[in-house]
Amino acid sequence: MFDDLPKGFRAGAAEAGFKKLGRDDLGLIVSDCPAVLAALFTQNVFCAAPVHICREILHNYGTAQAVIANSGQANACTGEQGFVNCRMTQRMVAERTCLTPEAVLPISTGVIGAQLKMDLWAAAMPALIESLGTRDAEGFTRAFMTTDAFPKFAMREVSLEGGLVRLTVMAKGAGMICPNMATMLCVVLTDAAIGREQWQAMFGRAVEATFNRVSVDGDTSTNDTILGLANGASGVAVSKRDELEKFENTLTELLSMVSHMLVMDGEGAGKVMHIHVHGAMDDADARLVARCVGHSQLVKTAIYGGDANWGRIVTAVGYSGAHFNPDEVSLSLCGIERFHKGQPVNDDKEEALDMLLKDKDIQIDITLGAGRGSYDFQASDLGHEYVSLNADYRS
Amino acid sequence: MFDDLPKGFRAGAAEAGFKKLGRDDLGLIVSDCPAVLAALFTQNVFCAAPVHICREILHNYGTAQAVIANSGQANACTGEQGFVNCRMTQRMVAERTCLTPEAVLPISTGVIGAQLKMDLWAAAMPALIESLGTRDAEGFTRAFMTTDAFPKFAMREVSLEGGLVRLTVMAKGAGMICPNMATMLCVVLTDAAIGREQWQAMFGRAVEATFNRVSVDGDTSTNDTILGLANGASGVAVSKRDELEKFENTLTELLSMVSHMLVMDGEGAGKVMHIHVHGAMDDADARLVARCVGHSQLVKTAIYGGDANWGRIVTAVGYSGAHFNPDEVSLSLCGIERFHKGQPVNDDKEEALDMLLKDKDIQIDITLGAGRGSYDFQASDLGHEYVSLNADYRS
Repeated sequence: MFDDLPKGFRAGAAEAGFKKLGRDDLGLIVSDCPAVLAALFTQNVFCAAPVHICREILHNYGTAQAVIANSGQANACTGEQGFVNCRMTQRMVAERTCLTPEAVLPISTGVIGAQLKMDLWAAAMPALIESLGTRDAEGFTRAFMTTDAFPKFAMREVSLEGGLVRLTVMAKGAGMICPNMATMLCVVLTDAAIGREQWQAMFGRAVEATFNRVSVDGDTSTNDTILGLANGASGVAVSKRDELEKFENTLTELLSMVSHMLVMDGEGAGKVMHIHVHGAMDDADARLVARCVGHSQLVKTAIYGGDANWGRIVTAVGYSGAHFNPDEVSLSLCGIERFHKGQPVNDDKEEALDMLLKDKDIQIDITLGAGRGSYDFQASDLGHEYVSLNADYRS
Repeated sequence: MFDDLPKGFRAGAAEAGFKKLGRDDLGLIVSDCPAVLAALFTQNVFCAAPVHICREILHNYGTAQAVIANSGQANACTGEQGFVNCRMTQRMVAERTCLTPEAVLPISTGVIGAQLKMDLWAAAMPALIESLGTRDAEGFTRAFMTTDAFPKFAMREVSLEGGLVRLTVMAKGAGMICPNMATMLCVVLTDAAIGREQWQAMFGRAVEATFNRVSVDGDTSTNDTILGLANGASGVAVSKRDELEKFENTLTELLSMVSHMLVMDGEGAGKVMHIHVHGAMDDADARLVARCVGHSQLVKTAIYGGDANWGRIVTAVGYSGAHFNPDEVSLSLCGIERFHKGQPVNDDKEEALDMLLKDKDIQIDITLGAGRGSYDFQASDLGHEYVSLNADYRS
């Protein structure tokens, strides 16, 4: 058992050859006992077969005991055959682990519209089962990476009255310059014992405060899935209000770390815009503004180029649909005010700003002067590496 | 007087040096008599000073007699000084042409947040006035080009009962790979005599069917303006129903030609996606789908790379917010069906498709099976040329 997995969980991985990667492309997590399940899924109408099946498990059972993850094929837009294949992968795992198929949560990432390669699945299964207990958090994470530049995982121990519990988060995808259908898969494991409603509720809040506030390209994948398994193997229950709060804070912190890793993923050229909107009529309006700025191609390319073209940011604010008086709007780039209550700021700070724009992290502060609403959002820039990676992803 | 301008209009241009272009950057149109004005403006909250002033003229007077156009500075986000400068440019033209300042429509494009260079304006004014009558439609159009690869203009004669009338359309901007704040400026001139309400109404319909259906990057500029001046100098009135219809059809055809030129503007690598959505619940839903596909970074980069990654298109359909049953959705790329009623099409046409994807015009047909709503939309791809041009636009 590895230290970076909570008690009662074992991880394995195998190279099935789904995409001729020369590396693991199939990963498995098994819990020694049934785990309480929390989950959130993509809002895309075309959700993939594994998303449908995980959603069924969440609603019909509320517990699960294993996660099977593959890269190479997303098993989305694959029709009835996609479901048949997905259920087959559940059975393959179930048969060899003495679980019911409905205890096995499938997650997939890769090319859309391609069927799972069932012969390769069958061939890889013995090695995958054999490998259980030989992989740590990083090893499992690597098995479902696609174009990720590095594996994304994080672990914390939480000290509660009843003893220590562990939380481990493992995720892939939505790298800064390599969105690969922007699919984001994330598995959260804990050995704490926690009630189903409480687990799902805190899960929803933690995801809203973290993963839902990062963006690479604004595309919502067919496969986005976040699973949380709480197996109680630590023997420590989280139920008192202050302990639930402490546990949720740690969960949010871990998801925040990992979601930042997603948007940070890149190969040197990429930058992260940290967009802070204040003074909006309400939080929803602040969110509109932040997302509009974070998704603007013209803002993204200017930030990529280190161009202090703040007018593009103001433009995105202007078409966001939020309510405000343009004469009350101010904007700072890297802490240097460029637009003050509807007027451009003319000073000698252009050169200093040009230097600051070479940083990897770019702060954008927008004040609307319309109320107390605020929203923070992280978004990646848009550069040549993004185009190169995405212009020819399938080939 | 040039043949490609309607009767009673003269055009001029001058090199003021607003952006050290070594070419004309200031253009002027003057009509011999007051013209009935129709106009449409950007929806951006931060609309530029010239947009505010043109809107005032439209509402307070409904007629105008001149258009002054500059590139280099957009005069947007320039506060009170921006208004003072803009009104000064109206007066400069008015004084030298015996017009009232309120008869002069200002349009600007260029960097946001920069003030107009009033000394250069004053210095260029004599040459600009002197040049009136020496430029044709192309000459005027060139004066307010920014990163456009070619000038965009078109002319038609319409034969009516009372005689011939002319329609000339001159536009800049929103080039395929070089959106330059995506600003689109367009001036439509006609020597027909037409009523104010009829002119504005047909103008609105024609723009909705043309300019509002093309996209480069989804950013809505602070300066987008379309002006229509009808001076009646032909002595031919357009008022009968069938003649109004004929005239409007020609207007729509011309705007369609010019809006296609906008999205076609590029330097070899660019492609145009022709997105056709059918079978939506209503036209509004079809529009949602078409715009979502046309704005998806992942779709745009795949088309740029000639990658038959149709799953990205289905994904964009899926998060568009339109209402439909995913099992009824079909999709064709370049006329080859890839997705049929929720199932992938497996055949041997991949190679043929790869060849077709090398074309400059890419047809995307999406059928939702939810009703009779439809929408057509043109959008550009996203490639290295876009990034290069936009990463360092200001410098």
